[in-house]
Amino acid sequence: MPRVAVDALGGDNAPHEVVLGALDAAADGIDVLLVGPRELERHGLTIVEAAERIEMAEKPADAVRAKPGSSLVAAVRAVAQGDADAVVSAGNTGAMLAAGLLHLRRLPGVLRPAIAVPIPARNGPSVLLDAGANADARPEHLLQFAHMGAVFSRELLDVPEPEVRLLSIGEEDEKGNALTLEAHALLRASPLRFAGNAESRDLLRGAADVVVTDGFTGNVALKLLEGTIRELLDAFRQEITATATGKLGGLMIRPAARRLRTRLDPDTYGGAYLLGLRGLAVIAHGNSGRRAIANAIRLAARGVENGVVERLAELVPERVRV
Amino acid sequence: MPRVAVDALGGDNAPHEVVLGALDAAADGIDVLLVGPRELERHGLTIVEAAERIEMAEKPADAVRAKPGSSLVAAVRAVAQGDADAVVSAGNTGAMLAAGLLHLRRLPGVLRPAIAVPIPARNGPSVLLDAGANADARPEHLLQFAHMGAVFSRELLDVPEPEVRLLSIGEEDEKGNALTLEAHALLRASPLRFAGNAESRDLLRGAADVVVTDGFTGNVALKLLEGTIRELLDAFRQEITATATGKLGGLMIRPAARRLRTRLDPDTYGGAYLLGLRGLAVIAHGNSGRRAIANAIRLAARGVENGVVERLAELVPERVRV
Repeated sequence: MPRVAVDALGGDNAPHEVVLGALDAAADGIDVLLVGPRELERHGLTIVEAAERIEMAEKPADAVRAKPGSSLVAAVRAVAQGDADAVVSAGNTGAMLAAGLLHLRRLPGVLRPAIAVPIPARNGPSVLLDAGANADARPEHLLQFAHMGAVFSRELLDVPEPEVRLLSIGEEDEKGNALTLEAHALLRASPLRFAGNAESRDLLRGAADVVVTDGFTGNVALKLLEGTIRELLDAFRQEITATATGKLGGLMIRPAARRLRTRLDPDTYGGAYLLGLRGLAVIAHGNSGRRAIANAIRLAARGVENGVVERLAELVPERVRV
Repeated sequence: MPRVAVDALGGDNAPHEVVLGALDAAADGIDVLLVGPRELERHGLTIVEAAERIEMAEKPADAVRAKPGSSLVAAVRAVAQGDADAVVSAGNTGAMLAAGLLHLRRLPGVLRPAIAVPIPARNGPSVLLDAGANADARPEHLLQFAHMGAVFSRELLDVPEPEVRLLSIGEEDEKGNALTLEAHALLRASPLRFAGNAESRDLLRGAADVVVTDGFTGNVALKLLEGTIRELLDAFRQEITATATGKLGGLMIRPAARRLRTRLDPDTYGGAYLLGLRGLAVIAHGNSGRRAIANAIRLAARGVENGVVERLAELVPERVRV
């Protein structure tokens, strides 16, 4: 049974919701290692003691250096030392990346880790990466992201032969910027099932199983998607509740609205996956509640069971010659 | 009264909807010059004859060279020759850009033209640029885009002192990629009302009056916004109509849904504005109908009346030293 180290002090709702989510995951039989203050032991989970917390606003590299005993760093170190198979935190994303690079280190041959995020597309999840690990990227990085995304799609989302597309500003091969044009050529020459460029307008409709982009564009796209969904659902509610008839109609469509919300809820997938390190790291949303944390732990455990890191270690250096 | 040249053969619904939109705008007193086949004369508008059409899928630069007599090129040339004050087309965006660069040419001091698009934010429109004129950009280009966007916001959207933000991957000054970090410093040192970085999640909520980005990111953001809005409204309709109660509720919230659709409809603003040329060019959506075309012509006319090109000509070379 996989053992998952959980940062009990990470995120806006820590430790309360984190503990509840950890208990839910433990009830499924996952071996949870809770990294946080000794007092949390009363919940019955195994504890690795860590009293300090890295705040959301702290500068990642500085915080990781200054707080080696923080729950986030200790949770990552638990994986590095073999005390756990994967780590989950809803804390500072940059700090997770920094701690991962420092303590887990990159897999041999991996140039840059990438953040992979499942997008709740119409026909099932597709994976977008890099969603923000590297603000600047080179074409060969995008090629590696594509390989890593394909492993993620196969092992965690059960897509047998994932189709890969490159996020660009037109479906035609010759549309793009200097980075994507070069990456396009590398992807075309790769053994991946590369289907050309994808346009962002199709992201939520299910543009491809794996959508590859640099971390700047990916982060902008992900936040835009989340912000637009939230703003639109809010604006709709506001318009509906503006009239009495609307309010009544609103009650009648509530189940429909709930189904849509559930599909689009980022909590369904639990968070983002840091790929390319010698250990599995999952970054849950900062505002994760119990359900999001539990799902993040479950997916981390599934990643361990399916040997995601081992698959990444096998594939990447062999296939990507740069 | 401003005279606007309208490409009668541009867009998916040409010439029918274009002619109807042109007639609506002409009814407002705008002097419309319809550029298209002689037979359209029967509608009572002044015609500049042009029989050929540039298709949406044609390669822009090639098409503009190969079809100098096309309606799109002839409409742009009408402005270059002083026969019209502005041009509107729902045709090939790249061809408009190529024809604009060739026949109108850049304003003195302008390094690159930019495509400016009004975003239907909650508190009124904000302008996003560059939405795709240049796939690659340098920091000084972003600075110029900011100046051009501020002129657009002031003259066309009636914002007295537009607040400018730079699209990035975090609000903190030090968040971004190599391009935005340098552009941030240039914007900070400029006389613009620069308020720092904006995150894409706030785009639809009204992140700033002017949101500056490179053409690749801007194009990805714009298409993602449009695609997500469309996909979400579709998905919602699908969920609502899945049950009888939902259907009834759906009827009751129809006015609310319509209000939301109207606000988010890109047709309300008529299209994108090509800034930085010696003439005003408006690119309407390819699928523009009568209303979108009429609004695009109206905004083009307002741009002429408010001297947008003259304001751009005054401001840009004076303020931007690169």
